Amino acid sequence: MAESIDAYLEPIDFFFDFSSPYGYFAAAKIEAIAARYGRSVNWRPVLLGAIFKVTGQQPLPAIPLKGAYTRHDVMRSARLYGVPFKVPSKFPVGSTAACRAFYAFSDRDPELAKRFAMGMFGAYFADDRDISSPEVTLDVAAQVGISREGIQRALNEPALRDRLRTEVDDAIARGVFGSPYLIVDDEPFWGSDRLDQLERWLATGGW
Amino acid sequence: MAESIDAYLEPIDFFFDFSSPYGYFAAAKIEAIAARYGRSVNWRPVLLGAIFKVTGQQPLPAIPLKGAYTRHDVMRSARLYGVPFKVPSKFPVGSTAACRAFYAFSDRDPELAKRFAMGMFGAYFADDRDISSPEVTLDVAAQVGISREGIQRALNEPALRDRLRTEVDDAIARGVFGSPYLIVDDEPFWGSDRLDQLERWLATGGW
Repeated sequence: MAESIDAYLEPIDFFFDFSSPYGYFAAAKIEAIAARYGRSVNWRPVLLGAIFKVTGQQPLPAIPLKGAYTRHDVMRSARLYGVPFKVPSKFPVGSTAACRAFYAFSDRDPELAKRFAMGMFGAYFADDRDISSPEVTLDVAAQVGISREGIQRALNEPALRDRLRTEVDDAIARGVFGSPYLIVDDEPFWGSDRLDQLERWLATGGW
Repeated sequence: MAESIDAYLEPIDFFFDFSSPYGYFAAAKIEAIAARYGRSVNWRPVLLGAIFKVTGQQPLPAIPLKGAYTRHDVMRSARLYGVPFKVPSKFPVGSTAACRAFYAFSDRDPELAKRFAMGMFGAYFADDRDISSPEVTLDVAAQVGISREGIQRALNEPALRDRLRTEVDDAIARGVFGSPYLIVDDEPFWGSDRLDQLERWLATGGW
């Protein structure tokens, strides 16, 4: 199909959970990959806990043998990628407040929302802060220049509760079962170790 | 640590299930990777069904959303790697006969056992034969030059039953929870998408 060089390219949808280490690794890489192919990235934090109710899966630490391996794999991968990382004292944790805060301003300022998201990942995986605490969410918001008071008000708004619920339902409807989960046009890629195939897909248009 | 260039290098342990597509992909690649670093590979077929009883995991097709994604991912990866592949009509299947046949001669002739293993993978993933049938195991044995009668007798030997049970128990004791699962010295790598890290580990001695 002939297309002009400035044809509109769909953004990459990037679903993740703030307490997912592989989501953190993908977050650290996806913008640079997308930019090489003229794509933008649509960040979509979701709640794996809600998704696991649909799929019947368990958080990794709860799975015998696989839990121990994954802990080792995450640390090894972080060293390889050069990403600051400590295994959090409490893992996994809920991230409802972080997600609601994200959606409070992500439509208006998606780039600011991405900086906030990286701040949340850093608070959890580099600084070992318990991001399930709304206080930590407010601290990270303040760090990127968003008023604590504004976010605190937003966290209790019914519209934001509904928004997060809709985002999670939409993710499930699109097949999201883990973090990170990325969709390029209609092509899904699960896991930070599929970013190489994702990049090849962007470069070649698929195979 | 200073070592002479001809220091003894431990073989890579390669655990897999004959009905694991990612095990098949790893089988197609691991010997070439190992050879580049002067390593041999110790192939160890196991029964994921027995392992899943310990970990509480489910076969992929039984997991909502993840099952559908994995089917897609396996076909896409096979096209990318250039490995002959059709989704088997029946998946997954038990591979007790295939494993027992493998261990009937793998100590005596490991290279022949590897050819037999690749034949089993091909029968299942390229030719869509039901490898849970002992007949298919005998056919594949015959294809690589092993007498059907010898294997048929072996399949019912208590010593081989015990051997397979021991292999599965040993795999679990070493942390194996999925297929493929590879161990380089004491370093574990799970999944065909960790072969890149495994190769880097061989090249660098770790990080």
